[in-house]
Amino acid sequence: MYQRRTDLAMERLSGLGEGPVPGVAAEEWRQEPLAIHRVTVTNQSGAKALDRPMGQYLTAQLDRSASWDSQWMWEASQVLAALLRPLLPEKGPVLVAGLGNRAMTCDALGPMTLDHLMVTRHLTRALPDAFGHMRPVSALAPGVVGTTGLETAELIRGAVKQAQPAAVIAIDALAARSLERLCRTFQLSDTGITPGSGACNPRQGLNQQTLGIPVIALGVPTVVEARTLALDLLPEGRLDEKNAPDAGMLVSPKDIDLQAERCARVLGHAINLALHGDMTAAEMEQFLC
Amino acid sequence: MYQRRTDLAMERLSGLGEGPVPGVAAEEWRQEPLAIHRVTVTNQSGAKALDRPMGQYLTAQLDRSASWDSQWMWEASQVLAALLRPLLPEKGPVLVAGLGNRAMTCDALGPMTLDHLMVTRHLTRALPDAFGHMRPVSALAPGVVGTTGLETAELIRGAVKQAQPAAVIAIDALAARSLERLCRTFQLSDTGITPGSGACNPRQGLNQQTLGIPVIALGVPTVVEARTLALDLLPEGRLDEKNAPDAGMLVSPKDIDLQAERCARVLGHAINLALHGDMTAAEMEQFLC
Amino acid sequence: MYQRRTDLAMERLSGLGEGPVPGVAAEEWRQEPLAIHRVTVTNQSGAKALDRPMGQYLTAQLDRSASWDSQWMWEASQVLAALLRPLLPEKGPVLVAGLGNRAMTCDALGPMTLDHLMVTRHLTRALPDAFGHMRPVSALAPGVVGTTGLETAELIRGAVKQAQPAAVIAIDALAARSLERLCRTFQLSDTGITPGSGACNPRQGLNQQTLGIPVIALGVPTVVEARTLALDLLPEGRLDEKNAPDAGMLVSPKDIDLQAERCARVLGHAINLALHGDMTAAEMEQFLC
Amino acid sequence: MYQRRTDLAMERLSGLGEGPVPGVAAEEWRQEPLAIHRVTVTNQSGAKALDRPMGQYLTAQLDRSASWDSQWMWEASQVLAALLRPLLPEKGPVLVAGLGNRAMTCDALGPMTLDHLMVTRHLTRALPDAFGHMRPVSALAPGVVGTTGLETAELIRGAVKQAQPAAVIAIDALAARSLERLCRTFQLSDTGITPGSGACNPRQGLNQQTLGIPVIALGVPTVVEARTLALDLLPEGRLDEKNAPDAGMLVSPKDIDLQAERCARVLGHAINLALHGDMTAAEMEQFLC
Repeated sequence: MYQRRTDLAMERLSGLGEGPVPGVAAEEWRQEPLAIHRVTVTNQSGAKALDRPMGQYLTAQLDRSASWDSQWMWEASQVLAALLRPLLPEKGPVLVAGLGNRAMTCDALGPMTLDHLMVTRHLTRALPDAFGHMRPVSALAPGVVGTTGLETAELIRGAVKQAQPAAVIAIDALAARSLERLCRTFQLSDTGITPGSGACNPRQGLNQQTLGIPVIALGVPTVVEARTLALDLLPEGRLDEKNAPDAGMLVSPKDIDLQAERCARVLGHAINLALHGDMTAAEMEQFLC
Repeated sequence: MYQRRTDLAMERLSGLGEGPVPGVAAEEWRQEPLAIHRVTVTNQSGAKALDRPMGQYLTAQLDRSASWDSQWMWEASQVLAALLRPLLPEKGPVLVAGLGNRAMTCDALGPMTLDHLMVTRHLTRALPDAFGHMRPVSALAPGVVGTTGLETAELIRGAVKQAQPAAVIAIDALAARSLERLCRTFQLSDTGITPGSGACNPRQGLNQQTLGIPVIALGVPTVVEARTLALDLLPEGRLDEKNAPDAGMLVSPKDIDLQAERCARVLGHAINLALHGDMTAAEMEQFLC
Repeated sequence: MYQRRTDLAMERLSGLGEGPVPGVAAEEWRQEPLAIHRVTVTNQSGAKALDRPMGQYLTAQLDRSASWDSQWMWEASQVLAALLRPLLPEKGPVLVAGLGNRAMTCDALGPMTLDHLMVTRHLTRALPDAFGHMRPVSALAPGVVGTTGLETAELIRGAVKQAQPAAVIAIDALAARSLERLCRTFQLSDTGITPGSGACNPRQGLNQQTLGIPVIALGVPTVVEARTLALDLLPEGRLDEKNAPDAGMLVSPKDIDLQAERCARVLGHAINLALHGDMTAAEMEQFLC
Repeated sequence: MYQRRTDLAMERLSGLGEGPVPGVAAEEWRQEPLAIHRVTVTNQSGAKALDRPMGQYLTAQLDRSASWDSQWMWEASQVLAALLRPLLPEKGPVLVAGLGNRAMTCDALGPMTLDHLMVTRHLTRALPDAFGHMRPVSALAPGVVGTTGLETAELIRGAVKQAQPAAVIAIDALAARSLERLCRTFQLSDTGITPGSGACNPRQGLNQQTLGIPVIALGVPTVVEARTLALDLLPEGRLDEKNAPDAGMLVSPKDIDLQAERCARVLGHAINLALHGDMTAAEMEQFLC
């Protein structure tokens, strides 16, 4: 009757039980300070089993002891950058889309990440001597259809037509199944945005098919649906109309405002490192100031 | 092992089962557009049963069909004002304290309510001819000890010494047991602030004993603890260290930012009507502009 | 050596002295609670004299006694709506662009106005039975090139391609010459956005030529350049490198945050009335809630 | 008829002309990356000449080439800390008051600075083993009388009674005479807050006499009154009712939101270094996170 909801491929896989799933490969390793997990959906049978498109889904998981000081965050950004770089075309302009609603805490990760992004497209055009060596990066916060009347996908398509990027990076707040993953797991995928995902708002699909260029999705779970939590707590089939939490009820950490801001910062810095190559924290900050 | 948590007296009472509780009286009636419920704790036996001090606890509950347009909100404010007025001294200055942390969505109701308050104390002092007929009202957002280093109670005590009010109104975001009450229930009480309540942060006690003047508490539940939700879903005693949600995990509506703002507005207007007497919405607004 | 700067056509005209200017017509009248002034640039000679494109420039000026209560603001919105309506195509979708930088107080009027806009395009598409009678309105806050890497004009062009509106309304904070006009004058024009205008940031041109559809510009001055103020105070030619204020120094009212918010509200409501026809304040608010 | 307004002692002194002023001593030196200037008012004759109380007024001025990257800002904070330390009692609790109105850009420096402050009083009390070696520091943002009904001085007196600090540090946005000093000059003084100063709001006096403990004032000019600018541009006595800018008109940089935030950060870090002794930027940040 009710379905568990998660936007994390690794949770979808583990939800299927312990044995191997045809068309799905999984592997794990450690890149300090993060634990990496890769799910690869290799054929349609795997795609159907996970209800996710074929492609690669990487998660980077924080240890419980993560200190969130600037040194730790910088190291985490470097690991994420190393995971992100192979998913992107080697060169060419990139459009970064920060999906979601800045006015809703649970959904603001995308726009918040753009605050930490090194945007260069205008500089490479206006000052080619000084900035022509940099990769042209533009940023779009498309907002939400309820306040713009424009579908996220329409706006991104419009920006893609204008900026002609070689790839889109789409950042989104996600829903997880496990409370332990909230603001502690980063997911990277080369499959674009799947319709229906997004922490507080469903999104339209954005992918190579619909945009004609690679769409790399980055996300962090900020909520667990209360209904999903209930389904995990109750014996099979015991959730019904009487005790099921309303679909709009979400679980998140009490300091979600702070935790989401930290994740946005790590993500933004990771994208900068992936796109513009190695630099020191001071160099990045000087650009962002 | 784990306890259900609620700051609403009516939920504490109903948590004790259906029969009468010695030392506790309850009654219900309707004041459109709200359903009113009064719990009166009449002796120490009742106080012990509810783990709440003796006194009066009023809740005003919205219908599911509440439209939240300005007409509806104005009517709701008038009903709350009528409930609040008898709890306050008939005249004399009043200090309104907006408890909680403006930077945390779940805890910001108190400071947000102050944004809608008619503050008059400085006007009655500086311009007695024009404003001397008004009740002197001052407002304090004491913040949280983690960012100020000062206990909420200390700051309120300091302000009370300076402003010498006849009563304190303390506004706070609360935790409920039932998801249906989130941002839909207003609680008014003449017993002050109870240590340990507050949606995201425990508070120190503030009451007639500690301050020497009446302390009227107003609150709206903005969260349900995920652990409390789990306790309500599971058969008795089935929550343990393995499946219990972390104490810092909270359930709230996905549009909590918006819903809390609406509640703050209704509360602020209700306090204005209770303190300054009947006026039109236009008159109040002209003062607030 | 230095030039006075103003984005208001009526100030440009009065800066040319008292006599008639060939190719420019002016008339004044009153529509309570505002004083209206129309400058019509009828030929290229007039356009050259004012350094503004041919077309119509309407200003609506507040009295000093404007009360800014909701009744007053509603009446002002109605007058502005009546001025705006004839500038727009009678039917068809409209895209409203809120230009400027929400993070800079002096430049935030455009994005702030969108907060008060009735956006309907998604509703007319998703729920044609309920909303099909409404004009499809979409809203875009294109941000600023320094944070997006995308030119405002590019983003609007992209949105125009997707939403196919019959007209664009572009809202922008302006610079005035006279301090008395700050947050007290509304300018409406059918000539689009002129390159180089905008309170804190120059804008690219957006007009019928570049977009292929009418572009109606709405603006309110929020700043006077300190240099312009100096030029008006000093005898001719007395401003030089030694005493000229830096170009980035701007004069505005000390409560500009509040005043700009009020202007945004009046503007947003005016656009709603112009696009969706007469309605009561309560009806508009119910839609916006 | 009109008076130039400045809260900077060094500008008041230079406004008196080139010669020596009885009762006022001045000296200058450099502490990279800042230029330091000390005005000492040694007797009542000097106090009368400057219309400022006897005591020490230090200003630290940025070079035009200041880079505002984190390295530069850290060095500036260290210089300011070295200037601040001798003004403070060697030990004992300190209350830091961030004066002004967070909702008005020009006046928000005080509250914004508190966001960067290491607040320790609650930790030294709750966890004396871990934090007992630290100086107890508390923070108060008293707001403005128009929204609280409580005088800033009353609230600080209340907090002083509760926290019993050995000194108060009061931070405030200031008005300067020269545009070049905006967000580029830090003033430190051991004379407390002078009635009538503050960028956008006059303040009540706070000093050793009224509070019984040293009051150290820190400030940065964020505005020049437009009227003061006009007085400096015009030949003597040429400003009259016809051309004088309204008293509420203020000049500030167009990116004042950003510049004030940077100054708040430098000030906050300087106070931390002065109160808690040398530490690395990483150590401070770990505390603040």
